[in-house]
Amino acid sequence: MSPSTPPEAAQKLLAIPGPIPLSPNVQRTLGLAPQSHVSPEFVKIFLESLHMIREVVHTTSASTAFILAGSGTLGWDQVGANLIEKGDRALVLHTGYFGDGFKECLDTYGANVDLVKSELGGTVKIADVENALKNAKDVGKPYKIVTITHVDTSTGVLSDARAVAACVRQFSPETLVVLDAVCSLASEDVQMDAWGLDVVLSASQKGLGAPPGLSILIASQRAINLWEERLKRGVKSGSFYSSWEKWIPIMRAYDQNKPAYFGTPAVNLVRALHASLVEITRGPIPLATRLALHIHASDLVKKSAERLGMEQVACEPAGRAHGMTALYVPEGVSAADVLGGVARRGVIMAGGLVKEVKDRYIRVGHMGWSVVGDGGKDVSFVVRVLEEAVKEAVEKKRVTARL
Amino acid sequence: MSPSTPPEAAQKLLAIPGPIPLSPNVQRTLGLAPQSHVSPEFVKIFLESLHMIREVVHTTSASTAFILAGSGTLGWDQVGANLIEKGDRALVLHTGYFGDGFKECLDTYGANVDLVKSELGGTVKIADVENALKNAKDVGKPYKIVTITHVDTSTGVLSDARAVAACVRQFSPETLVVLDAVCSLASEDVQMDAWGLDVVLSASQKGLGAPPGLSILIASQRAINLWEERLKRGVKSGSFYSSWEKWIPIMRAYDQNKPAYFGTPAVNLVRALHASLVEITRGPIPLATRLALHIHASDLVKKSAERLGMEQVACEPAGRAHGMTALYVPEGVSAADVLGGVARRGVIMAGGLVKEVKDRYIRVGHMGWSVVGDGGKDVSFVVRVLEEAVKEAVEKKRVTARL
Repeated sequence: MSPSTPPEAAQKLLAIPGPIPLSPNVQRTLGLAPQSHVSPEFVKIFLESLHMIREVVHTTSASTAFILAGSGTLGWDQVGANLIEKGDRALVLHTGYFGDGFKECLDTYGANVDLVKSELGGTVKIADVENALKNAKDVGKPYKIVTITHVDTSTGVLSDARAVAACVRQFSPETLVVLDAVCSLASEDVQMDAWGLDVVLSASQKGLGAPPGLSILIASQRAINLWEERLKRGVKSGSFYSSWEKWIPIMRAYDQNKPAYFGTPAVNLVRALHASLVEITRGPIPLATRLALHIHASDLVKKSAERLGMEQVACEPAGRAHGMTALYVPEGVSAADVLGGVARRGVIMAGGLVKEVKDRYIRVGHMGWSVVGDGGKDVSFVVRVLEEAVKEAVEKKRVTARL
Repeated sequence: MSPSTPPEAAQKLLAIPGPIPLSPNVQRTLGLAPQSHVSPEFVKIFLESLHMIREVVHTTSASTAFILAGSGTLGWDQVGANLIEKGDRALVLHTGYFGDGFKECLDTYGANVDLVKSELGGTVKIADVENALKNAKDVGKPYKIVTITHVDTSTGVLSDARAVAACVRQFSPETLVVLDAVCSLASEDVQMDAWGLDVVLSASQKGLGAPPGLSILIASQRAINLWEERLKRGVKSGSFYSSWEKWIPIMRAYDQNKPAYFGTPAVNLVRALHASLVEITRGPIPLATRLALHIHASDLVKKSAERLGMEQVACEPAGRAHGMTALYVPEGVSAADVLGGVARRGVIMAGGLVKEVKDRYIRVGHMGWSVVGDGGKDVSFVVRVLEEAVKEAVEKKRVTARL
């Protein structure tokens, strides 16, 4: 074995649905020396990050925010371990791979999970959600939680979180609404208070514009009350690492500008996240404009794909993400060919993730700095490279067919 | 709220027991742009990291290594969630704060935990371990696992892991030996195969010389067999995020240079860890020399403290860590005074962590780059600053007493 040296000389443009390219300032902040996790400087950075993340989800009501060392998956784990008790019913809205994951996580903590599945590439029908909620109420066993994957990274399907939340509030008001916003926060609108969301969970490496390695979660007072009431009955968290018994006092201490310790925070990642949150909430581009820029970039990519005859996995016009696009490759062309073609031109895109069609589609990320930085020149480059690579692959197929 | 800007202009020397200062190359690697977590470049970096971490713990036998996004605490969680079944007995050797933590983690997953506690600052008596093991065997309920905190970061106590493991192998050979090496790996000798350890768990931000945010764990084939046998009986992991059902296929894929996905790895941290592991296993200073340099640095700090009349929390000469030192401040002097004094001189040290004596002692880290880089000039600086600050605090006390 001869250890690798970093290949930054041949740095390609990352256009996958996370991790994403960082802004120059976030990149620079990431490279700073570690700080003490209990120093006043770091505690202030943590406190500010907890405040700014609340701004990004638009909550001003009492809520508890968590920033933990871990991947986005740890957000599911926090929900399962702290809000689910053995036998609780959960309704998981399934629009791709990540619905299966969330279900399996809740299973681990003893939930009885019902899935409401969309057709591949579609969104879940609100009428199906309504029926499920009503049936559960009718048999006297309402759902403890309903989970929504805001953007399923495997399909690029955008769910109407507002409509689902409204439906839950109407037909099963005691049910908590949990939004998996891993692939949507800061690239799609998330209105925690206005829509009545109880948990918004995310990760650092997508729209939030920081490196991977942080689980981010905001819980409403209602969710925390439920957890407290459960704790009073002596039912502890199902996991140690995800335990809110452990983390809530830590997050509340940081929220009050005081150091506290349960596990060592990933200080360098938190500083990078802080730098990105400053850009998102206090930078020259307001959050609303940032979201509009994501819509614009998304349109560029999707229209270009249409011109190339590529269909989107997300088949409903209103149910398409703005931070990523999942595209079927043209008939007879292989996804590997297209991915290879864009890579030769300096762009990294991602392969498929949904088993049934895994080799038939590619995924393109257009989030964060690539969209808002340098006038969105990354996205223009991505569009051009995709066009070239697809045309090349189609031409290659034609030539092969003739031989 | 006006968000903080990073205070790197006034960068102080971190001399806490983790996070620690990074080597220039690790620092530079940390600051590189994110890579795709499934790119061939990153998969190779992950593979090499999994190999090198095995070299650091000296295992060549079949074993499974894990590098997960999370803090060191996640290592405990992996042990509890995957190796403990409800009702299993565990023996936790307690030499400080982190023994309580490990116990509580195992409790979460249903273990019946016995503690063998040392006196504050002492090590656990091997005779006590032997007795506990024998008693458990006598009643027909041997321990499933014995846990050792190699260096308890709260006290600076170094446990004789080899002797404990030998004792377990002799009196309860079926029991797994778990070493919490968070604060010892790459600053103390760890011989996984030779000592017969079944799990070695650690974190990135101490002797391993990377930023915080990675949980590192190596499990012996015996531990994996036990987990597999349990899985065959249908007993799944108690946690989703820590689940070896999920992570083992991922780690085995990386081990074979193939990409796989469960959660997004913290790519920037993994690259920084990789850079540090290259230095540790293939750098100009061999690991054995690195350990000798830690002993030398430790001697410098401890002898200087002795001259200042400061007693060590770790009271047995053979039971003192080489990567950190916990020191009682002189009678009548406050720990805060000393910490403030060193901080004014540009060095950050840590306060106490053990409740009973929390305000009576300080903790000094001397690990990794501070010890092996630039001829150990960081440690010389730490020693000088500590002397000045303690003398100043003592003088201040004298003056105050006279008034």
